[in-house]
Amino acid sequence: MRVIYNEQMAELANLLGEMAGLAGQAMEQATQSLLQADLALAEQVIGEQDRISVMIAEAEEKAFALLALQAPVAGDLRQVVSAIQIVGDVNRMGALALHVAKVTRRRHPNHALPESVNGYFAEMGRIAVNMGAGAKEVLETRDPERAAQLNQDDEAMDDLHRHLFTLLMDREWKYGVAAAVDVTLLGRYYERFADHAVEIGRRVIFLVTGVLPDGEIES
Amino acid sequence: MRVIYNEQMAELANLLGEMAGLAGQAMEQATQSLLQADLALAEQVIGEQDRISVMIAEAEEKAFALLALQAPVAGDLRQVVSAIQIVGDVNRMGALALHVAKVTRRRHPNHALPESVNGYFAEMGRIAVNMGAGAKEVLETRDPERAAQLNQDDEAMDDLHRHLFTLLMDREWKYGVAAAVDVTLLGRYYERFADHAVEIGRRVIFLVTGVLPDGEIES
Repeated sequence: MRVIYNEQMAELANLLGEMAGLAGQAMEQATQSLLQADLALAEQVIGEQDRISVMIAEAEEKAFALLALQAPVAGDLRQVVSAIQIVGDVNRMGALALHVAKVTRRRHPNHALPESVNGYFAEMGRIAVNMGAGAKEVLETRDPERAAQLNQDDEAMDDLHRHLFTLLMDREWKYGVAAAVDVTLLGRYYERFADHAVEIGRRVIFLVTGVLPDGEIES
Repeated sequence: MRVIYNEQMAELANLLGEMAGLAGQAMEQATQSLLQADLALAEQVIGEQDRISVMIAEAEEKAFALLALQAPVAGDLRQVVSAIQIVGDVNRMGALALHVAKVTRRRHPNHALPESVNGYFAEMGRIAVNMGAGAKEVLETRDPERAAQLNQDDEAMDDLHRHLFTLLMDREWKYGVAAAVDVTLLGRYYERFADHAVEIGRRVIFLVTGVLPDGEIES
């Protein structure tokens, strides 16, 4: 039983890692589509969503089968329960990349972003992609130090997000309300993407160390 | 075993229901605080958050104990797995009510909302409270018809949300960018609150009928 459990749990963890990696890639492409008003790229991200949905269902079924057939206990059980929760996080990460791509599509052929905030979103995109890759690595290696590093990325994301709001709230903002609404929503999508990656890191740290790091209920 | 399982599962379902009800009440108070720029009420919602966090941890532990000690299978196992997922949804509902209260606090003594959109938020608040109560009822009774009704509430919420965006995008919007940013974020908080209630309904329908209704990955 134990050998089968280990094998199936490793498979599930790898599937979750793959999904986190795909969500990161989707965010990378969505960011490019946003910066370049590239409709084809946005459509590609939107088209990929079905594949992610299939993987979500597959991961949920794998977790269920593990519980039903292996009846794991203690630490093993905790791993499967965490996997079920992590599916929810990677699912949202994929959905948030999708939202970014949809903003590109909605505004095409115009750029959704005023040029002066492009740099912010290029950087938020870079961090998000990094965090997707980090979450993938953490899921596959269960390295708590790499997991903790996700918090640093998240702080960088929060800083950018705050700066962005300062720009929006400035009387000098000259791009109108419609652009401000897009920038507000887009900023939130990136920030939430980062939060979910952090949440994955927290759950892995808990599995490995038995201590759940303080949560963020700020966002 | 079976009797103990039934008892413990009923306890867990009631706890989840209680949490959904509390999230609905928190959204009610947060909405009132927003409409009346009532700082004391906002602080009350923010202060309640600790109690909800404790309940979240309690629900997760109950679900874990059920799996560890009762090793449920088939439909019973599916119930516990759903409960673990539903904890995530009620957690977010509470967090979104908290966000609304924090906007009230951030703008105090000013009103966060221009008076002309108060009606929209009063109505979105009313629907959200209704959906919190609906989710509670669904968790306690597992009535699939009541669960499906959450979709209708959600459609009403989406309609209001769309109208709100039409207002924001209108050239006649005269309340400036800062108010538009607040209205954009607040609108999203209510809409996401509704999505999580719908998600709870979907999971309960799945438990009772074995068929998972189509998901919303739009939001």
